[in-house]
Amino acid sequence: MRYELYYWPSIQGRGEFVRLALEEAGADYVDVARMPARAGAGMPAMMRLLDGESVACPPFAPPFLRVADTKRLIGQTANVLLFLGPRLDLVPKREASRIWAHQLQLTIADWLAEVHDTHHPIGGGLYYEEQKREARRRSANFCVERLPKFLGYFETIVASNPGWNGGLVGRAVSYVDLSMFQMIAGLRYAFPRTMARLDPKHPRLVALHDRIAGRPRVADYLASKRRIAFNQSGIFRHYPELDALR
Amino acid sequence: MRYELYYWPSIQGRGEFVRLALEEAGADYVDVARMPARAGAGMPAMMRLLDGESVACPPFAPPFLRVADTKRLIGQTANVLLFLGPRLDLVPKREASRIWAHQLQLTIADWLAEVHDTHHPIGGGLYYEEQKREARRRSANFCVERLPKFLGYFETIVASNPGWNGGLVGRAVSYVDLSMFQMIAGLRYAFPRTMARLDPKHPRLVALHDRIAGRPRVADYLASKRRIAFNQSGIFRHYPELDALR
Repeated sequence: MRYELYYWPSIQGRGEFVRLALEEAGADYVDVARMPARAGAGMPAMMRLLDGESVACPPFAPPFLRVADTKRLIGQTANVLLFLGPRLDLVPKREASRIWAHQLQLTIADWLAEVHDTHHPIGGGLYYEEQKREARRRSANFCVERLPKFLGYFETIVASNPGWNGGLVGRAVSYVDLSMFQMIAGLRYAFPRTMARLDPKHPRLVALHDRIAGRPRVADYLASKRRIAFNQSGIFRHYPELDALR
Repeated sequence: MRYELYYWPSIQGRGEFVRLALEEAGADYVDVARMPARAGAGMPAMMRLLDGESVACPPFAPPFLRVADTKRLIGQTANVLLFLGPRLDLVPKREASRIWAHQLQLTIADWLAEVHDTHHPIGGGLYYEEQKREARRRSANFCVERLPKFLGYFETIVASNPGWNGGLVGRAVSYVDLSMFQMIAGLRYAFPRTMARLDPKHPRLVALHDRIAGRPRVADYLASKRRIAFNQSGIFRHYPELDALR
């Protein structure tokens, strides 16, 4: 089955959580908005679906997925992964396990939204420079209170997973593990000093990050041009003044 | 089947989205943390499950649901509704419709998080009084930019729903409709001036709110002591200085 991923072409953002799943599974997919605008692809194709009044189930925002040759669009990152998980064999088969994996993914989504708001605590439509003062306060709160809480929670989940030794859900690698890799990688880019302090306290998440990075398809992907580099337009941004734990 | 809902006992909060589904369906449920602490209920029972190292799939935060006589806990509001929807007959049966309903519910969850952050833009662990200045800026942005965008999006979804005339998903009432009722009710409590300006622009959502409020079981519930009143500790809070559209 062929998948079409639609996401902003110049950042990893939320689209990266879907890309990692498609790459690990070796799925046949195209990253539509990053293709040339001719031949019905590129940003114009994405914007047509996003604004399009003719779309039956219009998404509120990217990323969204289209199963090729159907009209069906699926939006909301965690929802896309809920849909793809069983189809890419990246989640256990039992309903209870799929619900549990999704629950963890939604907690990652909440965490990611808090990361975004460290540099945009007032509004996503304003520039960082317009909210630097507030960003400093919010980031300090995030690094001291929230980040250790999220990391500690997921460290416990790995420790208590009765299945695979080292992952979050079940015995095999899941899309939640891939997302956790992305969280750790992104947090290290955005908050290097803070993460250098916190990393030793969550050795299981560090090991999980390394194990995912070393998987053949993921390693190929990370070394390819398909992997957009972290940058200052994405969700994970490195502003030294926001890296609060020293 | 008997359900146990666990949520903070003195606010509607995220728990209310689950309560409304259970109430509309006439489900057999108990609101555990609101019961007396004796007999294994009340807040101590909730905190035991939240902090409990013996819990197999521990939730990150309330609300969470237990299907009675099982050890299974389900957390994350939208995930609880994903689980309950088919069991309470509050979502269409086809997988594509369930995924679509869930996608809308996740967009409501994002919206609700933004409502929360209007009064807590810096940190949930700080008092409102410690972040009033930032709250004013964030609320102005929310009322002018974000709120009209969310309302406009969902108004379009009702308008384009090929099924039930007046609801968000399918032909019959869904848990997403119940959640939309709660959003409109809460926004009117928190931002009465702003919503008085915006209500005329989304007549379908106003009609949906009224229709849900008039459903017999929902009306019974809203008139009962089981419905906690809106208050200044919940997600929807009325601070006149944050009600930005005049």
